[in-house]
This record gives sequence, C-alpha cells and structure tokens, in this order.
Amino acid sequence: MDVKQVMTEIGQKAKAAAAKLAYASSEAKQEALEKAADALIARKDDIIAANGKDLEFGRDKGLTDALMDRLMLDSDRIDAMAEGLRAVAAQADPVGRVLAEWDRPNGLHIKRVATPLGVIGVIYESRPNVTADAGALCLKAGNAAILRGGSESFHSAGLIHECLVTGLEAAGLPRDAVQLVPTRDRAAVGEMLTMTQFIDVIVPRGGKGLVGRVQADARVPVFAHLEGICHIYVDAAADVEKTCAVVVNAKTRRTGICGSAECLLVDRGFFETHGAPFIEDLLKAGVDVRGDAGLQAVDGVNAAGPDDFGKEFLDMVIAAKLVDGVEGAIAHIAQYGSNHTDCIMTQDDAVADVFFQKVDSAIVMRNASTQFADGGEFGMGAEIGIATGKMHARGPVGADQLTSFKYIVEGDGATRP
Amino acid sequence: MDVKQVMTEIGQKAKAAAAKLAYASSEAKQEALEKAADALIARKDDIIAANGKDLEFGRDKGLTDALMDRLMLDSDRIDAMAEGLRAVAAQADPVGRVLAEWDRPNGLHIKRVATPLGVIGVIYESRPNVTADAGALCLKAGNAAILRGGSESFHSAGLIHECLVTGLEAAGLPRDAVQLVPTRDRAAVGEMLTMTQFIDVIVPRGGKGLVGRVQADARVPVFAHLEGICHIYVDAAADVEKTCAVVVNAKTRRTGICGSAECLLVDRGFFETHGAPFIEDLLKAGVDVRGDAGLQAVDGVNAAGPDDFGKEFLDMVIAAKLVDGVEGAIAHIAQYGSNHTDCIMTQDDAVADVFFQKVDSAIVMRNASTQFADGGEFGMGAEIGIATGKMHARGPVGADQLTSFKYIVEGDGATRP
Repeated sequence: MDVKQVMTEIGQKAKAAAAKLAYASSEAKQEALEKAADALIARKDDIIAANGKDLEFGRDKGLTDALMDRLMLDSDRIDAMAEGLRAVAAQADPVGRVLAEWDRPNGLHIKRVATPLGVIGVIYESRPNVTADAGALCLKAGNAAILRGGSESFHSAGLIHECLVTGLEAAGLPRDAVQLVPTRDRAAVGEMLTMTQFIDVIVPRGGKGLVGRVQADARVPVFAHLEGICHIYVDAAADVEKTCAVVVNAKTRRTGICGSAECLLVDRGFFETHGAPFIEDLLKAGVDVRGDAGLQAVDGVNAAGPDDFGKEFLDMVIAAKLVDGVEGAIAHIAQYGSNHTDCIMTQDDAVADVFFQKVDSAIVMRNASTQFADGGEFGMGAEIGIATGKMHARGPVGADQLTSFKYIVEGDGATRP
Repeated sequence: MDVKQVMTEIGQKAKAAAAKLAYASSEAKQEALEKAADALIARKDDIIAANGKDLEFGRDKGLTDALMDRLMLDSDRIDAMAEGLRAVAAQADPVGRVLAEWDRPNGLHIKRVATPLGVIGVIYESRPNVTADAGALCLKAGNAAILRGGSESFHSAGLIHECLVTGLEAAGLPRDAVQLVPTRDRAAVGEMLTMTQFIDVIVPRGGKGLVGRVQADARVPVFAHLEGICHIYVDAAADVEKTCAVVVNAKTRRTGICGSAECLLVDRGFFETHGAPFIEDLLKAGVDVRGDAGLQAVDGVNAAGPDDFGKEFLDMVIAAKLVDGVEGAIAHIAQYGSNHTDCIMTQDDAVADVFFQKVDSAIVMRNASTQFADGGEFGMGAEIGIATGKMHARGPVGADQLTSFKYIVEGDGATRP
C-alpha cells in the first residue's frame, strides 16, 4: 500500500465532503447521528466479535491490564457509545450561531456567524469508543473527520466506523464525512501531521508519548494538552472542611485522568494555624504524600525529591509544599504547571481574583475539585479533548470549539467614501 | 551582532513583559497609549529628521514613488498616527470581557473570560506608522509585541518606538512590552518565524512576497492573508442602479488595497435582460475590463486571458465573466477566490442566503462595496491586518481578536461524584 497516496486520496475526499457539510441542515446531521446509534445497537454482536480479534492481538502484544480494559467492548459499553451519539445529536447546532451582530453608521449591518472549521484529523490510542465520540463531534460542527485509531483497536474501530457511515448515508450526507485510516502503518500518522492542504486541525487523544510526538512533528495546528499537572493552593482564608473534601476528591476520585491533582500548595500561615488536616485525610485514603521540609512535620509524609514537583503522577501520589501566600502559589504554578487546571481554596474574594488573573491556565478554579475539568461537567455534552494552548480552542473542546466564523455584511447599495 | 542571541533575549524579555501585562489595569494601558501619542507630537521634528535619513536610504536604493510615499512622514501624518493611538486608548479593554457565563447542576458557576494571547510578532514593510498602530493594538489587548519593520524605515520606526516606550514608562508598564528588532539583518525574521517558545502568533503586514515567505516558513501560527481576490457577483435579481454604484466603487475607489474588487461575475439571465451598464461605467472610469467571450459583446471590453481569473491586479483592471446563477458564481469563487471578501448584488433574500452559506470567505457581503473590508469600517477602531485562515482570528483583526480566553470556575466546596 502506498501510504502517501492513500492519505492524499483521503484528504481530497475529506475536503470535498467538508464543502458539502458546511451547509448540511441541522436535521440531517442529527439524523445521521441517531441512525449511527441505531446501527451500533443493531450490529452489537458483530462489534463484539471484531473486538474479540483486537483483544487477542492485544494479548499477544502483551498489553497491560489497564490497556486491555480500555480496548474491551461489551454490550453495556456499546449501549453507552450509542447513548453518546444520541446526546450529541440532541445538542443545538453550533453552525450558524450568530456570535455578534451590529449596525454601522456607514449603513452596513454586520453579523459574525459560526461556520465549520473544515477537516479535523483525530489521532488516538486504542480506545475504540473515541471513533464514535470524535466522529460525532466533528460531524455535529459540520466538519469532515479523518480518524486514526490505535493499531490494537483496528477491527473494533472499523466496525464502529461502518455504523457511522450507515448513519451518514441514511441522512443523505456524504459518506466521506467521517473516514477511518485503513492501515496500521505508522507512516499514515506522519502524513496526517503535515497534510496542511487538507487538514485544518489535528486533535491527538492519548498519553504523553502520543501527544508529544504530534506536537513536535505537526505542521497542522493542534488542539491538545501534553500533561495535566493540576495544583490546589490552600490559602490562609481557606475553609478547612471544604478543603479536606475537595483535596481528597481532586486526588483520589480517579488518579488516571488529566484533571487529577498532582501538587498541593499550602499557605505557611494556614499551616501554622490549622495544620494540614487534608494531608491526614490523603494519607488515610492511602495516598503517598511527598512533602517539602516544612510539611514533613506531618506524620506519614515522605520527603519530596526535586523531580516530584511538576510531575504528572497519574497515581495515588501527590507532591506538597508550603508557599508564602497566593503570590508564592502563583510563582510555583508558573514554574511547574502545565496550563491545564489549577485551583485555589479560599473564602477571600480579593485573593481569589488575584489567583484568577495571574494563573495562566485554561481552567482556574475556586473551591471546587480539579476533577471537574471535563467537557461533560462543563455542560458541553461531550469533548474531543482538552487544550492548553491559547490559539482558537482552550480548555475542554466541544462541538462549539470545532467551529470558525465568517462575517456577513449587508448594505443597501453602500459605497465607501 | 549574534542575531540568534539578540532575538532570544528579545523573546525572553517579551515573555516576561507579557506575564505582567496580562494583569495590567485598563487605566495603565490607556495612559501608556495617550502618553505615547503626546511623545509623538513632542518629538515631531526628531521623527521628521530621522525619516529624512530613511528617505535618503530609500532613494539610493531606488524605491518606486509609491513606496517612497508610504515611507514618508510629515507633520500631518505624525498627527494622524498620534490620533490613532488615542483612538485605540479610548476603546473598551478587550481583556477581562466575560464571553459567556453559566451555572451547572453540579453547583459550579463557569465563566469564559478574555485573556491576552501572550507575545505577538509583527513583521512589516517600510510603513513607519505600522510601528505605532501594531504596537498599540497588541498593548491594548495585554500582549507583548516584537516589531520588525522594513529596513528602509529603520530610523523612523526607531524613533516612533522610543515614543511608545516613553508612554509605557510613564504608565508604569514594562518597557519591554513593545520591542523593536534593533537590526536590519534579515536573519532576525527567520528567528521570529521559528521562536515558538517565545512568540504566540505572527502577523505579517505587506505584499504577497512578504506574506508568502512568512506563511511558508513560520512554525509560529500566523494571522494573515496572502491576496485579496475579491469577487462581485451580479445576480438575476440585482438592482441595476445600486449595482452600478457598488461595482465602480469596489473597483476604482482605491485599486491598491486588498478589498478592491478584482473579478466581476454576471448572471447570464441578468445580462440578457439588462446588458451590463456597470461595465460601461467601469470603462468610462478608465478601467481595463477583461471579459470572457460573452461579455466581449460589450463595446470596449478586452478579451480575458486564462490568467486573468484568480489574479490580484491591484490596478485599474478587472476580469469579468458570465455565470449561470448563484451556483455558477459560487463555483467560480471556490476555484479562483482567496477567501478574503466576496459580494453578491441581489434583492432576493433566498439567493443571498445561498451565497452567504456556500461562499467560504472571511467576509461575505450583499449590496455593499468590497472596499468596506476594513477593521475601521467594521467598527473595530483599528486593525492589525486581515486574516483569511480559519484558526482563531478571521477577517479584520482588531484588539478583540488578539485575545485568548480562560475558564473561571467557582464552587462552594464542590466535589465530583
């Protein structure tokens, strides 16, 4: 197979499909997603059989239990995928929204209207359900999608993709609106990253290895985050009870997600007055707390090494440090953070405002668990990923963020003096 | 001079300044711009003297009259530059705007708030006034600016930059908020285009040669347009009188700007009924009209060559062609346009809607001159350029478009179930 040629053809087809999708009706897009959900349910047995082949391949390859679990599809998971498609179908159409509208003294009426971005490339690891989620969000926003799943999910992703195409055809939309790269050859990823003439944006979904490679090699713009090194700063004016609840939730609810807290910063004054009851709670919950010299005074706290700050543990481990007030916390986050999600615990509005202004992260929180850093929790219905860059999309990327805009300018024969 | 080292230092200083500008008060930014305007007026004689050196350099280099005119500064032009700074100063602060705000059933209150982009690089030709305009717009949006002017405007740009720094210092803002590259060495441009660790976006301002080079070589995101190949489509339902006025204005008001019309598409039915009175008007105004076979029936129309379609004449020349209805016009624009500004003349709302939906340009107009494609005319106060890409900014780029955003999430001790 000539990968370059295959990818060029996919790119051309995506571009042609995108031109048609740009003015597809809301009803057609909704119908395509609902019919795709129906197809997932109707073909459940086939999907489970295909997934069996993938699981066998994964076992032979020696995948970890965690990766095998991500790869596995059963009846409940297929139901959940279909529900996800129906939820995206039910959302408001992001295309055509009037983002702003005004009149000018020169007689012009100007509107800024949301339009699709064009063609979106999604590169992901072996979670077959991303095929459905990502395809659905791209389609909802009127974009053509080129999906490249992990090699271990090859068969499952192929069948899920067939269901999406069934939906597209039932709704009279171009079948090339969602394409799946039909090869396990890694060269296909390299092609996607440089196909600036065909792909408008790339969304990588997966671990640091995948995202880092995409960010380093892509010539196409990328919506992504490399790491989620989320901090919680406990201010002098923090409420002790709320802080205990939020800190434990932020670290332990799920440790493997990007919104999990990785570092605790405690105001020195708070510590002198109240101690660190939330650290005791973390220790009770079985967390390995790695503290600086000051916090090692708490029984059970281990000594932090220099590499423990700025580290994404994704595990029952947290770094912890005393800082001098909100400015100390801000300076630490500026040096070690990853611009993902950072939180302040305080009852003091003025201190919270300083934190909100000076912490340069996609999401800044107050008195809330960093585990809320999620498109679903934000009310976006679903997310294709979380972006920490500043260009175009930032934070959870839902269908709205997969749009661009144009200006529509109407006059009555207006000429410029 | 070690250009790489000089540029790295500039990048580091810009990054440090941007971190402070991100939370500079609206008042301080306003004061800096007003004091810079005062400085321009106070140092008018010095600026004119420095410009004299640039004009001499330009003459020796054999610049055309048009380029010499762009380079020249006199008392009126310096007054206009100062007025421009005061106008930007008076605008509302784009930073801190609440772009959206909502409550969630999980107890969170979420706000999407505008933030600065960071560091903006501006690469321009020998128009010294861009130093003031671009510096002001970047500062207004809380961004640090790295300005690289054309070598012919070296001395004038240097003095204008000094005035900006005077304003920054008077307002207590970091002097590195606006930096001017202190060398004529072209290698500095190459450094800027690849300084992804320091520069968030590059705005090239100038001709196709400059913009093309920047777009080809930049690793940093770029806001720009390569060409303005603007079309006017005269629909079957066009008003004849309005069309004549708009077509003549769109072509002849100023031929050297990117919003000037370069191609006229005429519905075949319209032509059979009404002829092409606007072509007669163009001819009377001295325009070289290059028509296809059908339009050559009009006395005085020259034969269009195949290269005349999709060409940016920037002169008293226009290509013209008969098309079959709005779909014919849309197909022509898709093939030959530059996604800048395209206009339909029609009294039929349904036809206008088809044009608005299917023409994929930053600005789509109806019954208005394409020469309105301008940030000032749009009410943005000023523009740093016009972008035809779909990422982040599109159309005229004012201070608002030089911002990013963050999410501010507030809870009352909320934990995620």
